[in-house]
Amino acid sequence: MRGKSWKAPFAVVAAAFLALLPSQTAQAEDGYDLWLRYAPLEGAALERLQAFNPVVHFDSATPDSETTDIAIAELERGLASMLARPLADDGQGKIALHCADPALPADGSFRLAGAADAVTLLAGSDLGCLYGTYALLRELAQGADPRSLNIASAPAMPLRMLNHWDNPDGHVERGYAGRSIFDWWHLPQRMDERMIDYARANASIGINAVAVNNVNARAFMLEARYIEKLARLADAWRPYGIRVFLSARFSAPRDIGGLPTADPLDPAVRAWWKAKADEIYAAIPDFGGFLVKANSEGQPGPQDYGRTHADGANMLAEALGERGTVIWRAFVYSEFDETDRHAQAYAEFVPLDGQFAENVIVQVKNGAIDFQPREPFHPMFGAMPHTRLMLEAQITKEYLGFASHLAFLAPMWEEVLRADTGHGATVAEVTSPVGMAGVANTGSDRNWSGSDFDQANWYAFGRLAWDPTLSSETIAREWAAQTFSRAPAFLDSVVPMMLGSREAVVNYMTPLGLAHLMGTGHHYGPAPWVCDLERPEWNPCYYHRADANGIGFDRTESGTNALAQYAPAIAAQWADPASTDPIWLLWFHRVSWDHPMPSGRSLWAELVHRYDSGVAAVDAMADSWANLAPFVDARRHRAVTENLAIQANEARWWRDASLAYWQSVNGRELPAGTPAPAHTLDYYRSLTFPEAPGN
Amino acid sequence: MRGKSWKAPFAVVAAAFLALLPSQTAQAEDGYDLWLRYAPLEGAALERLQAFNPVVHFDSATPDSETTDIAIAELERGLASMLARPLADDGQGKIALHCADPALPADGSFRLAGAADAVTLLAGSDLGCLYGTYALLRELAQGADPRSLNIASAPAMPLRMLNHWDNPDGHVERGYAGRSIFDWWHLPQRMDERMIDYARANASIGINAVAVNNVNARAFMLEARYIEKLARLADAWRPYGIRVFLSARFSAPRDIGGLPTADPLDPAVRAWWKAKADEIYAAIPDFGGFLVKANSEGQPGPQDYGRTHADGANMLAEALGERGTVIWRAFVYSEFDETDRHAQAYAEFVPLDGQFAENVIVQVKNGAIDFQPREPFHPMFGAMPHTRLMLEAQITKEYLGFASHLAFLAPMWEEVLRADTGHGATVAEVTSPVGMAGVANTGSDRNWSGSDFDQANWYAFGRLAWDPTLSSETIAREWAAQTFSRAPAFLDSVVPMMLGSREAVVNYMTPLGLAHLMGTGHHYGPAPWVCDLERPEWNPCYYHRADANGIGFDRTESGTNALAQYAPAIAAQWADPASTDPIWLLWFHRVSWDHPMPSGRSLWAELVHRYDSGVAAVDAMADSWANLAPFVDARRHRAVTENLAIQANEARWWRDASLAYWQSVNGRELPAGTPAPAHTLDYYRSLTFPEAPGN
Repeated sequence: MRGKSWKAPFAVVAAAFLALLPSQTAQAEDGYDLWLRYAPLEGAALERLQAFNPVVHFDSATPDSETTDIAIAELERGLASMLARPLADDGQGKIALHCADPALPADGSFRLAGAADAVTLLAGSDLGCLYGTYALLRELAQGADPRSLNIASAPAMPLRMLNHWDNPDGHVERGYAGRSIFDWWHLPQRMDERMIDYARANASIGINAVAVNNVNARAFMLEARYIEKLARLADAWRPYGIRVFLSARFSAPRDIGGLPTADPLDPAVRAWWKAKADEIYAAIPDFGGFLVKANSEGQPGPQDYGRTHADGANMLAEALGERGTVIWRAFVYSEFDETDRHAQAYAEFVPLDGQFAENVIVQVKNGAIDFQPREPFHPMFGAMPHTRLMLEAQITKEYLGFASHLAFLAPMWEEVLRADTGHGATVAEVTSPVGMAGVANTGSDRNWSGSDFDQANWYAFGRLAWDPTLSSETIAREWAAQTFSRAPAFLDSVVPMMLGSREAVVNYMTPLGLAHLMGTGHHYGPAPWVCDLERPEWNPCYYHRADANGIGFDRTESGTNALAQYAPAIAAQWADPASTDPIWLLWFHRVSWDHPMPSGRSLWAELVHRYDSGVAAVDAMADSWANLAPFVDARRHRAVTENLAIQANEARWWRDASLAYWQSVNGRELPAGTPAPAHTLDYYRSLTFPEAPGN
Repeated sequence: MRGKSWKAPFAVVAAAFLALLPSQTAQAEDGYDLWLRYAPLEGAALERLQAFNPVVHFDSATPDSETTDIAIAELERGLASMLARPLADDGQGKIALHCADPALPADGSFRLAGAADAVTLLAGSDLGCLYGTYALLRELAQGADPRSLNIASAPAMPLRMLNHWDNPDGHVERGYAGRSIFDWWHLPQRMDERMIDYARANASIGINAVAVNNVNARAFMLEARYIEKLARLADAWRPYGIRVFLSARFSAPRDIGGLPTADPLDPAVRAWWKAKADEIYAAIPDFGGFLVKANSEGQPGPQDYGRTHADGANMLAEALGERGTVIWRAFVYSEFDETDRHAQAYAEFVPLDGQFAENVIVQVKNGAIDFQPREPFHPMFGAMPHTRLMLEAQITKEYLGFASHLAFLAPMWEEVLRADTGHGATVAEVTSPVGMAGVANTGSDRNWSGSDFDQANWYAFGRLAWDPTLSSETIAREWAAQTFSRAPAFLDSVVPMMLGSREAVVNYMTPLGLAHLMGTGHHYGPAPWVCDLERPEWNPCYYHRADANGIGFDRTESGTNALAQYAPAIAAQWADPASTDPIWLLWFHRVSWDHPMPSGRSLWAELVHRYDSGVAAVDAMADSWANLAPFVDARRHRAVTENLAIQANEARWWRDASLAYWQSVNGRELPAGTPAPAHTLDYYRSLTFPEAPGN
């Protein structure tokens, strides 16, 4: 911090010693402002906005609503911050809001059109104006010329939803960013301002629905005292266009209702849910509905009474009526079902196609197992034409290194959204009429997401749910520009780093279609050797099936034939190892260690190569980031640097522990030039992590 | 937010709509900056500082250290922020640092002297300069004229310490501000910047020691992997003058050391602790030492092996040697001891006076029970002249309404510090040669303490440990001025509100010397009826002993005679109800419901009166605060308002539930004009709070 000049007999400390403006001295960059920093513009972008000299107008048809107020306040705040001065009363560049344009639907759609002396924002609703406001500020924050804006935007999916796995006691299941942001204890009397900041962040990327509690739900959250709490949140979020949903425990009529059963066909049970729904709607007129995890991983459900998922979902749907929606999760697998876990959800749900009520949505994870670093798309997509299917993605990185590994997930979601189901539509096309849910990664950490780069996954989720045709690159670029720096030299380096980051994780954790090789319970670190857990499908060895002869899960006709659940063209392509992309190879096929790969390497050599390339990619990210120090404030730069150091260590751990284990199974040498694992297999097996977070 | 004028056909939004400077738009007041906001000055104070035109100088003898760098950076930051402009290179008002003045001790002492063109800061160490820097900024933030500063300050107590009851999993025992601020999982690789902000806040009020983990300690925190983590914190905090301590589990040699015993006289045990201390000092050369809770509430200790507290403490003291200190808690009571809990610590410890090693401190809570809203000073103070005694206070409000009740604790600590022990010294005089520890109230909440006003308790603790002669009023005034507003109209209203707040809590919870009447386990809300817990001293009825004839705990000769543990003059005064201040009456005496009080009321009428006055005081606080809206930003004003509403409800709950219970015991009517409890006793007894925080 100080040079030798400080040794002068009586030195004056130059003001440049801490050359910060007061606005910067007040509070350091700590990530709390997310992508909504509205950092002051500079250079040509600043000159353009200054010359435009914005002032906010709105027409008389614009609804006199809190939402309109928020849009205008946000415009004033964002423009003033980017200009580094308050807006002038006599500004000449009109930001002209028309928030009740009959030509536009009231679903949040908007149009932005720049001209020499005005930017016109047209919308069919005040919420459309709010969305348009954020779009305008997003463009300006990236340095766009207000005069040349020309954007027409409409939400692709009606339901753009966050699912919080937050327990009422503040613990977040699979949460890596501290405690829950929901302070249920003090609600409804006290509501943390963070609840507003949260709603604002969501609105800025188009998220319009939030399930506030864990799908492993506590029944008491349906009690009157919690409805009061939820109502306060609903009131606070309504102006931001967000509807609240509750995860409902299916056994609630027994748990808190005093009934002897939760059988969905029992009239008293049906009456209880109807009364409960009425009670909720009395407090929250726009309550979204229930999210339900039933008959999965020990949760109660209709099958406890010999009923189907459709019986259970339709009973709740009837209770809600036209007022709301039941979102029923398809993530089911059973300890009584010995078939391939991959095949169970399809087997349970597809036969029910057409039986679900109109206000039921079946929520399907991107893949058939469980949010692994890479999974092929779920075979249910496209296979239930008479059922409303919604995509469930995971923003919190349960299987991708928690918050300390940098993995930008947009490429993963892009991969699934663009996948052709073979039923005449991509996954995006199947789900767009319905929606997309993301398991939230928020927590009490100052930066919300546990790391600065994990904010990008929250951002990307919202942007993709709004428009699944956006490219990962576009999203990365706009996020990084708003969050860190709009300098082209920064973006040209950080964007490719983000785009390659998820593939790096796939490679150092589970390359070539491997999956589910993580530590038991906490899901932290590698544990391919685990084979002694009670239920077969809990064991990593269930998934990799490695022995001296080969490795991989045969899901073709010669194996479990789960592949038959895919549309014929897809199934045919993946039935043959030769026509299966190597990224899925071991997901569908069991092959010998000598299996020849397209690269010319053997399977074993290719596997080692992928692990190595994953590790190398992390090292390259760390190098790139080190070079970006001039563009990022010291505080956030150091935080990312420290995370990358953890990731570099853990990538090596994944590679070395995995290789040591595969060697113990196949007895093979590593290819020439490959460094040996840093420790013995026994060492890796001996590691325990009782304090790992998120369990 | 908007008036009717918005209905004009095409309205321009005045820039004043959100008349915020960019510095304010960037981040709202959220309490994170605590009392170190350095809000821009205004009026005469601004003119004076502008005219002084400060610039920072330092002499060549000043140590070239991180601490000096921090002091200078803080000066630049604070002055620039208060001036709302960077410091001028050619400033004429020298802030002249002399940080190696041989005339001043190196214990953090400093002198500040203003003159027409300079403020001279003299200190015997760079740490003294850092403390002086904060003192200077504190004065300027209150509007002082730099030219007329004249302060000589030295720490009264050498050890000014925070004890964190933070578990390594992030849960804070008796924590009401979210999750722990310590992220053990990611340390040492990743250290949250909050750890620096925390050290800075502590340094600004003179705190110089931190025990990082709960006294109900996990042994694994002594393992090598945690020493690495702790070392990173120690390195980060060293420049701020903070030494780290660890709470050590006495059974660690068995738990993690592989030994069959933790007997303090066992040579292998002694060798284990010596080796452990050496291991820690190799990583942390200035490690402070161990904090130990032994043989209390189920924690292991030397008595498990038939040894004394002195045996246990001295064994650890030998392991540390001259390098560090053992802080041994006197908070002990035993399930095998049927005598008055009040008397147990004294009975166990006072006979050991003179037997503790020189580097052992015995840490004594302010009162003999457990951080109740009011307790008489602990009889151990003054009774162990050959032992180093340290005061333990509780900043987190386990028994004073958690973070949602406003209770400024300085008056409580002032009460105990100024108490005459009867042994020729006040409690402050007994403990000043040693130190003062406070159980921290920090957490992951944005405002650190769970509420804005709880920050004042952290602040007051540090200020009193530095100078126990400071008045609560002085502390309240300087805190409120820095934290909210220096406007005299604000301070003249908020300071009396703060000063009376703790007495309000005493009155609506446990007036007239009552104690320990809270709910079981979580300590939330009233439960005077509880009488069925396994151990007698866990039961509220053990403490109040109310029946049809009277109420109170007889600790005189006719009762448990715990009073005999006090010095004769004190014991004599408190032996007679007539010479006992009513605030202690039922603590020492059992009296009839008709007992005449100095007020002229009967005990019963006085009790009711006190409850009512507690409730009325909370209502008055809410009124005062409502009137202070013009002085406080909307965000923090609303947060405090909402807390006061909770407090008003809960004050009534405490009063009404208590009165309903007392009436069930004494069968008496309420005095005329007193409103009846809002609910029946059965109702209050039926309430359960499984989700109450902090347990």
